[in-house]
Amino acid sequence: MEFLRVTDIEDIEDLIFEKIPTLKGEKEKIKLEDSLGRVLYEDIKSKENIPEFNRSTVDGYAIKFKESKGASQGIPSFFTIKGEVYMGEDTKNKIESGEAIYVPTGAMIPQDADSMIMIEYCEILEDTLLIHKPVSKNENIMLLGEDIKIGEIILKKGDKITPENVGVLASMGIYEVPVFKKLKFSIISTGNELVGEGEPYTKGKIRDINSYALSLGIEKFGVIVEKKIVKDDYSILLEEVKKSVDISDIVLISGGSSAGNYDYTKDVILELDDSEVFIHGISIKPGKPTIVGRVGEKLIFGLPGHPISSIVVFNVIVKKLVEKLYSITEKENFYYGELSHNIHTTPGRTTYQMVGRRLEGDKIVIDPIFGKSGMITLMTKSNGYIILNKSIEGLEKGSIVKVYKF
Amino acid sequence: MEFLRVTDIEDIEDLIFEKIPTLKGEKEKIKLEDSLGRVLYEDIKSKENIPEFNRSTVDGYAIKFKESKGASQGIPSFFTIKGEVYMGEDTKNKIESGEAIYVPTGAMIPQDADSMIMIEYCEILEDTLLIHKPVSKNENIMLLGEDIKIGEIILKKGDKITPENVGVLASMGIYEVPVFKKLKFSIISTGNELVGEGEPYTKGKIRDINSYALSLGIEKFGVIVEKKIVKDDYSILLEEVKKSVDISDIVLISGGSSAGNYDYTKDVILELDDSEVFIHGISIKPGKPTIVGRVGEKLIFGLPGHPISSIVVFNVIVKKLVEKLYSITEKENFYYGELSHNIHTTPGRTTYQMVGRRLEGDKIVIDPIFGKSGMITLMTKSNGYIILNKSIEGLEKGSIVKVYKF
Repeated sequence: MEFLRVTDIEDIEDLIFEKIPTLKGEKEKIKLEDSLGRVLYEDIKSKENIPEFNRSTVDGYAIKFKESKGASQGIPSFFTIKGEVYMGEDTKNKIESGEAIYVPTGAMIPQDADSMIMIEYCEILEDTLLIHKPVSKNENIMLLGEDIKIGEIILKKGDKITPENVGVLASMGIYEVPVFKKLKFSIISTGNELVGEGEPYTKGKIRDINSYALSLGIEKFGVIVEKKIVKDDYSILLEEVKKSVDISDIVLISGGSSAGNYDYTKDVILELDDSEVFIHGISIKPGKPTIVGRVGEKLIFGLPGHPISSIVVFNVIVKKLVEKLYSITEKENFYYGELSHNIHTTPGRTTYQMVGRRLEGDKIVIDPIFGKSGMITLMTKSNGYIILNKSIEGLEKGSIVKVYKF
Repeated sequence: MEFLRVTDIEDIEDLIFEKIPTLKGEKEKIKLEDSLGRVLYEDIKSKENIPEFNRSTVDGYAIKFKESKGASQGIPSFFTIKGEVYMGEDTKNKIESGEAIYVPTGAMIPQDADSMIMIEYCEILEDTLLIHKPVSKNENIMLLGEDIKIGEIILKKGDKITPENVGVLASMGIYEVPVFKKLKFSIISTGNELVGEGEPYTKGKIRDINSYALSLGIEKFGVIVEKKIVKDDYSILLEEVKKSVDISDIVLISGGSSAGNYDYTKDVILELDDSEVFIHGISIKPGKPTIVGRVGEKLIFGLPGHPISSIVVFNVIVKKLVEKLYSITEKENFYYGELSHNIHTTPGRTTYQMVGRRLEGDKIVIDPIFGKSGMITLMTKSNGYIILNKSIEGLEKGSIVKVYKF
């Protein structure tokens, strides 16, 4: 039998880019409404000032701030109310000495006014405004361009579109957004033992899990063009992989990547034109029997058949690669917590230890989740993993650990 | 002018449920493929054992473990290889004393075998298997029902469907999932100053932001049935609110909720049949001028017009309410970090302080984000908030704070 020559997890990305130098994210423009969760293809510069005019941040009266100097409870300052500015109006109103004009929140400050006094501090006697405290220059005013200036970079290439970012884009009148095009994925689950929806579930069979878990993992950044179960039959697998390569950017084959008797993935890739397998075995646990290859410029991953292994490899290799292609610098997908048990590692392999999380008072406690390889319940109990580098022997209970979320 | 009588943030949910006792999440069944991000309506019990048979977790040979006793490098144990089990096969094979049968990972253990020896530790001479170390009972075997037993609760009401959970559901053959039906939302942005996509953006106008930010915030748990901009005109607003109430479960009206001259939301709600406004003003900052009312059994929120205020109220009131309706106990939406600056609060109001996050080495540093009310850039710089209870005066630099993500 053939033994696996393993590649270091740290070298995988470079190797992939070296083997497929054309691999990159492409651009498309989509409607702002459809952009949630997508990733910006380029920096967004504002083409407008925000606000486009000196704007009131309160309901109240616009005055010249100098004229409120010395106003107090005992000796108020007096102004003649000259009128009001309407919401959305490009006002031609102008303040003269001793005058005040009503301006609601968000409306334009009249010319020559330089301060707003909030309505709460105003006393009104017919056409006269009395104020009992002084205001300072530009108080309660947002000046033209104070929030965002023309040409300012507001969002960066690689930023994910959140509801807040959508608000920001709308504020600048950007209703079409340049984002990275979703990569096209095919998922092939291999194994005679696998049954899918609607197929008879007889003894000895196992329900297909990976194509579901992987496809919903991909949904966030890719599009599934095909999802299928293929038996352990060399010529059928060959045919199906060929079809998938034609219509996808990335093909994921789960199962069939170890060195067992019926594991055809590697040979199938190699039989296709202009193909190579450049990784067969990765120094991680779980997920060692992972294959990475290419057919032409299309990328193919052979993932382990065990659901947890398959999800780990998907998260730490496939997803990371896509994040690199999309220039994502993910800042939010980890947190720290205190380890509740000792963990030991496997020498020479980077260990991805599944963990659960709970609170003890205000302390986040991280429980390593152990179980037999392939156990489904590992998935329900975990919500992330910690990385134990291959150079360390383990971690002690009480250590502060960095937890990456799925 | 009318002053606001504020309601405590802690009392809002109870008040809403008291006023609309019929408010609850409804059930629908959807396809597993479409379930990402949805919320389980009820506990999921397994109708099957997993595995359904004693299953090998390795590639190797099934034997009786007692017969490996004493095996060593010097004195191996010998077995006669009797054949193999195929993947997915309901094997009728049976092990007799001194026999071994090949079983690949995931396949069924033959009758009367009680241990698997990994292929890596096997030496094969024609039909004879030599093993050089003993194995223990049930080694490398997952027993029937060991992972999941019939009737076991695997996922709970209120759990969100993650890719991992989809895998778990698929493993149990659950391809239709009972989830909470998405609530129907209408969003009305009010204000003469607002312009939407395609409308002329003249001086004095402000682009509509809230309907975009809110609708993408809702997308995760609700469906937007309508989104519109309405001028500050009492009868038009009345007409539009009436239409929205008819087709929605919840209507969000942004702007028009404070006590200014052109703020009609409250009066409009009250003019509709069988309506009441039971909250007008909430003891939070930002977000004080918030209205909550009902028309029949439909819920109406009047949100502040300022984007940040509107997003805060949406997150801490509307979203929290929906999470309650969906029985979500969100465990993942916060983390801890060290505050970089002192923060002061407003007496008598719970303060939601926008914060950003950065790393100093391995330490998560939390920067409070300050800026004038209504600034767009507050949104781009923040990615969450900390809650300062109204009973405290502030927080000191260096405090460990709990950050809630948007």
